[in-house]
Amino acid sequence: MVDPKVVALITGLLSIGVAGYLFSWVMKQTNENEAMARFSKAIQEGAAAYLKRLFQALALVALVIAVVIIVAVNWQTAVAYLVGSFFSALAGYAGMYISTRANARVAYAAREGLKKAFPVGFYAGGVMGLLVVGIALMGMTVIYWIFKDPNIVLGFSFGASSLALLAKAGGGIYTKTADIGADLVGKVEFDLAEDDPRNPAVIADNVGDNVGDVAGMGADIFDSYVAAVVAVMILGWELYRDHPHGEAFVLFPLLLCAVGIIASLIGMLFVRTGESNDPGKALNTGTIVTTVVIGLVTVFVIAMTGIDAENIWTRNWQGWGILLPTVAGLVAGIVIGFTSDAVTDIDQKAVQNTAASAMTGPALLILEGFSYGLLSIVPSIVGICAAMIASYYTAQAFGVNGVYGVAVSAVGMLAITGMIVSSDAYGPIVDNAKGCAEAGNESEETIRVCDRLDAAGNTAKAITKGFAIGAAALTVLALFAAYTETVDLQTLDLRNTGVIVGLFLGAAMPPLFSALLILSVSRNAFVMVGEIRRQFREIPGLIEGTTPPDSNLCVDIATRGALKELLLPGLLAIGSPLLVGLLFGKNALGGFLAGSIVTGIIFALFMANAGGLWDNAKKFIEDGAHGGKGTDAHHAAVVGDTVGDPFKDTAGPSINTLITVMSLAASIFGPLIARLALFPL
Amino acid sequence: MVDPKVVALITGLLSIGVAGYLFSWVMKQTNENEAMARFSKAIQEGAAAYLKRLFQALALVALVIAVVIIVAVNWQTAVAYLVGSFFSALAGYAGMYISTRANARVAYAAREGLKKAFPVGFYAGGVMGLLVVGIALMGMTVIYWIFKDPNIVLGFSFGASSLALLAKAGGGIYTKTADIGADLVGKVEFDLAEDDPRNPAVIADNVGDNVGDVAGMGADIFDSYVAAVVAVMILGWELYRDHPHGEAFVLFPLLLCAVGIIASLIGMLFVRTGESNDPGKALNTGTIVTTVVIGLVTVFVIAMTGIDAENIWTRNWQGWGILLPTVAGLVAGIVIGFTSDAVTDIDQKAVQNTAASAMTGPALLILEGFSYGLLSIVPSIVGICAAMIASYYTAQAFGVNGVYGVAVSAVGMLAITGMIVSSDAYGPIVDNAKGCAEAGNESEETIRVCDRLDAAGNTAKAITKGFAIGAAALTVLALFAAYTETVDLQTLDLRNTGVIVGLFLGAAMPPLFSALLILSVSRNAFVMVGEIRRQFREIPGLIEGTTPPDSNLCVDIATRGALKELLLPGLLAIGSPLLVGLLFGKNALGGFLAGSIVTGIIFALFMANAGGLWDNAKKFIEDGAHGGKGTDAHHAAVVGDTVGDPFKDTAGPSINTLITVMSLAASIFGPLIARLALFPL
Repeated sequence: MVDPKVVALITGLLSIGVAGYLFSWVMKQTNENEAMARFSKAIQEGAAAYLKRLFQALALVALVIAVVIIVAVNWQTAVAYLVGSFFSALAGYAGMYISTRANARVAYAAREGLKKAFPVGFYAGGVMGLLVVGIALMGMTVIYWIFKDPNIVLGFSFGASSLALLAKAGGGIYTKTADIGADLVGKVEFDLAEDDPRNPAVIADNVGDNVGDVAGMGADIFDSYVAAVVAVMILGWELYRDHPHGEAFVLFPLLLCAVGIIASLIGMLFVRTGESNDPGKALNTGTIVTTVVIGLVTVFVIAMTGIDAENIWTRNWQGWGILLPTVAGLVAGIVIGFTSDAVTDIDQKAVQNTAASAMTGPALLILEGFSYGLLSIVPSIVGICAAMIASYYTAQAFGVNGVYGVAVSAVGMLAITGMIVSSDAYGPIVDNAKGCAEAGNESEETIRVCDRLDAAGNTAKAITKGFAIGAAALTVLALFAAYTETVDLQTLDLRNTGVIVGLFLGAAMPPLFSALLILSVSRNAFVMVGEIRRQFREIPGLIEGTTPPDSNLCVDIATRGALKELLLPGLLAIGSPLLVGLLFGKNALGGFLAGSIVTGIIFALFMANAGGLWDNAKKFIEDGAHGGKGTDAHHAAVVGDTVGDPFKDTAGPSINTLITVMSLAASIFGPLIARLALFPL
Repeated sequence: MVDPKVVALITGLLSIGVAGYLFSWVMKQTNENEAMARFSKAIQEGAAAYLKRLFQALALVALVIAVVIIVAVNWQTAVAYLVGSFFSALAGYAGMYISTRANARVAYAAREGLKKAFPVGFYAGGVMGLLVVGIALMGMTVIYWIFKDPNIVLGFSFGASSLALLAKAGGGIYTKTADIGADLVGKVEFDLAEDDPRNPAVIADNVGDNVGDVAGMGADIFDSYVAAVVAVMILGWELYRDHPHGEAFVLFPLLLCAVGIIASLIGMLFVRTGESNDPGKALNTGTIVTTVVIGLVTVFVIAMTGIDAENIWTRNWQGWGILLPTVAGLVAGIVIGFTSDAVTDIDQKAVQNTAASAMTGPALLILEGFSYGLLSIVPSIVGICAAMIASYYTAQAFGVNGVYGVAVSAVGMLAITGMIVSSDAYGPIVDNAKGCAEAGNESEETIRVCDRLDAAGNTAKAITKGFAIGAAALTVLALFAAYTETVDLQTLDLRNTGVIVGLFLGAAMPPLFSALLILSVSRNAFVMVGEIRRQFREIPGLIEGTTPPDSNLCVDIATRGALKELLLPGLLAIGSPLLVGLLFGKNALGGFLAGSIVTGIIFALFMANAGGLWDNAKKFIEDGAHGGKGTDAHHAAVVGDTVGDPFKDTAGPSINTLITVMSLAASIFGPLIARLALFPL
């Protein structure tokens, strides 16, 4: 039989290879509009400058943490940690590189219509999607091959996650600082359109889309993907030490990822659109094909591993106990993604009620969006619980450990990552394309094509957000189980005061973290507003369009602000589990993780959905409801949208990564903590 | 030795007697301003009409639940349940009765200055405070005396809490419907002052203060007070069955309440103010005196119980294991109360930063208040954890069960309830007095005196809110422990999938409940806004002040709206633990309670503090900062205040009661659930 590690490695390399092919195809597309090229160039430079400064700062942080790991754990984990950080950064950088180059090319292709432009955007997104999964799978396989211990792969995951946290949070602060600043002065005070080149913050705003949505989201999904796989590897390692096919339980998640990559490649072939089709449908078709292929192929892969081979043709084959949780995760991911899209859908009651309340001013609009955001938590929570129950019991029913089953369902959910990230990265690329088309004075028709591409991107983005949170929930639950195994907790009793204290402290972390990020955004946006107002006041000819603004100053405010504000939340994420563990011991730390997971999921869902809802309520009014643009209702809706911006694009998406990082830190430093705790409760 | 039950009963009756004396004293004060008397009369009638309809509806609900309890548990618990409901309603009604009669009397006394007016307001508040504790203590003592089983007293507590939940939530919906409606149209659109008699919703707004803040808060604290005592009684009963002084552990909380009442009476004697003093300081002095007296007297009371009498003069006396947790609770309550006041204090950075961001419009103001509200969770959570750790370990150190110690600390914290409720009820009374003075065209000087009385009331209110949440946290933790005892859970393992599923579902309840309440407010306020606009449009002479508005229509909208919207949240609170328990069994229900407690405390703190912060940011601007009244910054701050209104006065304060009701329902129906669960996880 073929070694699963060989299969995983080859598939990973294949994925990277296809990404390279798509990259060269996209770069071959032309753009001959000079104004557009200049605009795109400014974005490229701003984004590259920000990422360069970010990664320089993070390299230093990574080295410090690596030294801590060498002292507290071992050098192998430290090496894996550095490799994980580097690969995560690479995935983010590559995504940003292609997206800032594809934007003008999509806009130029839009001259010839939807059919020509759509593939440019989608294949550019595909570069990102395939790189993320390819690099991750290759990295994990190689590390495991060399060190032969999943606990070392944990270091790889920790590196990927801590980098992702800072990239995501920094990008989120950057993008919303620029966006809010540009909107508050440009749109509200001077009545300029989105992306008006007279607005000094417009370049910063577009840079933000790329460093926040592309680089940040890439690093984020990279990290969930790796963490889910590592959790299963560790549980397989700990629970099936003495099993005749023990290693199959460790390697199964790598194989499942390989299946996911092949399925994503097949799914991508089905993403095609004609001139009049809805490109959103094309993206959904790709997702569904990928899902079905994974479901079908996984059964053969499990058979290949040799687990319970003698009973393979019986009703009691143990393989079902792995296959069914995989399918449960897959289905749950799709369901959660699509329902969280439905909550924020523009045709739904929640959005329309929220928009209607705008007629009484911003206050009731904020209250409605806030409340519907809270209500929207419930279906996703029920979905996550259903996936847990289903995967636990289907695993148990066929003689597989239930906790292992829950962890497998997380990997099952994430197996379609290649396809999901491709559709997601497509979003900001075509969003930027629209900006390019406007900056390049393209025809109405071209801009209309870009608009249609963009609408499909927004749907894909909403689905990905729900999906990312659902996946993170199952992943951290798997990591939580892995933690209890690595520190050898026989029970984690909620009747124990230490566990309850930990639960409370952990539960306070996601709100605290969110507050710090949102305050960063509002503090920086306040500075940005001052600068934009200054430029309009002091630069003669700016508002008339005869003198260009000084965009670099705005780019600089966003860059410096984001980097400066990262320190405290970053420290909190990595330091707090260590502190709680070293003070109160492994029981309290277990409670701490559970608390942070629970409120983390709730706040992540609430913030993503409330933000999406206000955004769509604004669009609903802009489409003509309640008087349309320029009315008091519209102004109220703009307030709601601005409040929602850092919810959905800064704090919300960072919380996933926060709880992943905290869980990984707990597992890595757990054995040390169990030994050294000062006042174990 | 005297029977502790006799001591408790006599003290309870004493408290009721003093309340009666204060009541007749307040009623002897005169008011000879007819306009003021008319205004006060309208409030009395509106409030009485609302409470009558509310209690009629609730009587029906209570009878249905009583039948369920007879079937599922036993008739004794059902009787206790009905008595608890009735007493809770009585405390709320009596508080409303006195407060709506004291308002005009305070305003009239304010003609003669602060020194004359302050006692009228404070003693009127004292009627409420002393009635709450007196009735509660008497009721619990009698029920225990008759049935000799704390599990029956659990029914009394469940009755008090479920009534409190609906009174609090209904009052909260009522008061904010009227307040927001009155402000959005009156203040924002027609530039009328607060309490301008031309505003059709102004009577409804004042009624709301009484049914929300007085009747609701009275029932709320009544319920925490009873629940904390019952939890200790049950733990004493279960844990000290075989102890030679077993009953002393059951009766101790009743004695502690008696001490608290005596201490409150002494503390109230110290609440005095001269003409130029700050009445807020007088209230704080009373609180501090009460606390000190309790600390000093409790040691003698414990000695009296005879626990470990042979070692009473040694360093290892077991009594310390009861005294120290009591003191830990007392101190924690005071600290949490005062720090949560500090967060929302007008002189603090959080309020001033929030106010400054108003200069860019409402969006950043909302974001800042939201974030500081989230940050404010942390000190209180740390305080609650510190109280838990301290009470657990001081109890254990002297041979008392640690969980019993944690429960005792909740009663310790609540022992000062008599004093706290007195100061708190003072707030809405003097707030209404200011309205009366304006309606009665009193002099500038009189209104200024009322303003000073009101400012002190706001501080007292902020302290009480923090205190109430801290007390509720410890109380529900004690109830949670009582639940695990009543269903005989040996362990509640977070590694169990059922516990995790329960934890997630429970954690979703407080956000869901909050969302339903806030949506109710915004839905009703929307209707109210329509009605007020209609009256200004259709009643000739209204805006000129020559024709009075039709206030009854507004009172009616608020009344019907509040009653209609109560059904769903009420059902959720009482039904959800039953549903989860009957579906997934006692492990999942344990996780469910833990989850609801954690997010419940977090959301309660967040909502109370964020709301207070926006309120004070508005006041800060109205005092002249950033341009003062009428500027754009002020309009932005009004938006923030309106968003915060249902946070701090509707959803926030109801969450305490929600988690208490859920915990009590779990304990009462727990044994049944343990037997009947369909798919125990």
